[in-house]
Amino acid sequence: MQRIKTIKDMRALSRGLMSEKKSIGFVPTMGALHEGHLSLVRRSKEENDITVVSIFVNPIQFGLKEDFNKYPRDIDGDLKKLSSLNVDFVFIPEIRKMYPDGFSININIGGIGDIFCGAVRLGHFNGVATVVAKLFNIVMPHRVYFGQKDFQQTVIIKKLVRELNFDIDIIVCPTVREADGLAMSSRNSYLSPTERKSASILYRALKHGEGLILQGKQDASYVKTEIEKILNSEPLISIEYIGIVKPQRLESVEIIDSPVVICLAVRIGTTRLIDNLPVSP
Amino acid sequence: MQRIKTIKDMRALSRGLMSEKKSIGFVPTMGALHEGHLSLVRRSKEENDITVVSIFVNPIQFGLKEDFNKYPRDIDGDLKKLSSLNVDFVFIPEIRKMYPDGFSININIGGIGDIFCGAVRLGHFNGVATVVAKLFNIVMPHRVYFGQKDFQQTVIIKKLVRELNFDIDIIVCPTVREADGLAMSSRNSYLSPTERKSASILYRALKHGEGLILQGKQDASYVKTEIEKILNSEPLISIEYIGIVKPQRLESVEIIDSPVVICLAVRIGTTRLIDNLPVSP
Repeated sequence: MQRIKTIKDMRALSRGLMSEKKSIGFVPTMGALHEGHLSLVRRSKEENDITVVSIFVNPIQFGLKEDFNKYPRDIDGDLKKLSSLNVDFVFIPEIRKMYPDGFSININIGGIGDIFCGAVRLGHFNGVATVVAKLFNIVMPHRVYFGQKDFQQTVIIKKLVRELNFDIDIIVCPTVREADGLAMSSRNSYLSPTERKSASILYRALKHGEGLILQGKQDASYVKTEIEKILNSEPLISIEYIGIVKPQRLESVEIIDSPVVICLAVRIGTTRLIDNLPVSP
Repeated sequence: MQRIKTIKDMRALSRGLMSEKKSIGFVPTMGALHEGHLSLVRRSKEENDITVVSIFVNPIQFGLKEDFNKYPRDIDGDLKKLSSLNVDFVFIPEIRKMYPDGFSININIGGIGDIFCGAVRLGHFNGVATVVAKLFNIVMPHRVYFGQKDFQQTVIIKKLVRELNFDIDIIVCPTVREADGLAMSSRNSYLSPTERKSASILYRALKHGEGLILQGKQDASYVKTEIEKILNSEPLISIEYIGIVKPQRLESVEIIDSPVVICLAVRIGTTRLIDNLPVSP
């Protein structure tokens, strides 16, 4: 496994791989890797000649009052995990090279970035779109892998690729969960033991919603209310949103008569957690 | 010369050329081609294996009250000119394929897009950046050619390429002028004979400014005032701006002690014209 530190070196590498007609699979991450990330890496290894993983905690996708500074970082641990999976290249650019003085471009992805998570995390998805476009142009991958856990992000990145005509396939992989159903997330490390225990209710609430839909319940506001009741039974949790939306464009549905995604965001103490579940009635 | 009508066909073509390791030169245009455009095409032909010219009047770079509908269009004339230069491919995409229903992404290029031409043409340069990013991803060129005439645009596109890490060289070619010095522009066709005659004063004013700087005048506001006097001597002209700026970042200078660009915008009747002149003291 080779570690690439500069944009210039990464680009030279990708150019070389392209001229050798190697297919490049790419897994962009913010590090603090868990089984969710590793499942993306394994999938990329299966489907491509070469796999590149980036580790970059992207400052412009964090709000001023968010957790950029305390976001978990564990480069040594990350490198060990990636090395054990025989990743070909790890790209770890510096912030000041990604965002040099005077940097001012921002990709505005429109209203779809201002709802659900974007309503609370102002500018977050524009920051994601901007760094992802940069990484796409540097790494020049054929396929890029994201987790279903960040559902809104996957919808937005597919839109970015479609609307800016990137010649890239976006592949969304299933959410990887802990034994009790909690979706893996680098932010789970923020939870105290008590909070961690209560966090399992997110998945139970989603599964309850799925059960209602599979039983034939079509009224989205009824299903949301039932999910809300379950989440509210856990005193440590405060709900940010519960949505039942169409998978492609995040439009909220009233009647559930085609595939939907149930998505939710909560706070447990100071930690914000998200999760979702695709359901086909 | 082959005409390409769909994004899909253009992409397939570019992929094929890349796998054959052909270098691709690209000249994006809005059609109504004049000698300025053709000089870019000739330069691209010299420097690349394959030259692609696009013709696309980009709606999102026009303001609501601007001249999108009356912008000159002459596809047949354009194709003849390009064919006589042995251009390899002409890409003429449809608006509804470039901007399908629900399109919402906009590349915001920051404050440099809000000054000079951007102060009057709100959102113009974001529209330019967005279409250019799309065309870059579709055509996948090695080198792209723009005219110095659209100076602010060239600065912004270089910034777009740098900040979003496009693997592309931007090549800016000298302004091509009519016999009386008027910079060639598709919009010159809007001018009445009287207006056309008065328009030659733009270049005379720029050359007068250049002369003052070459004589050693360093006070930018003095030079601008002298240029203003010349332009104001022509009653049909109303001045929009006169700037003396650093070539890289469009910063206005007070003391002219390094290379600058004198740039200006005026209206003659309802027609808006721009021009500029790089000067090294």
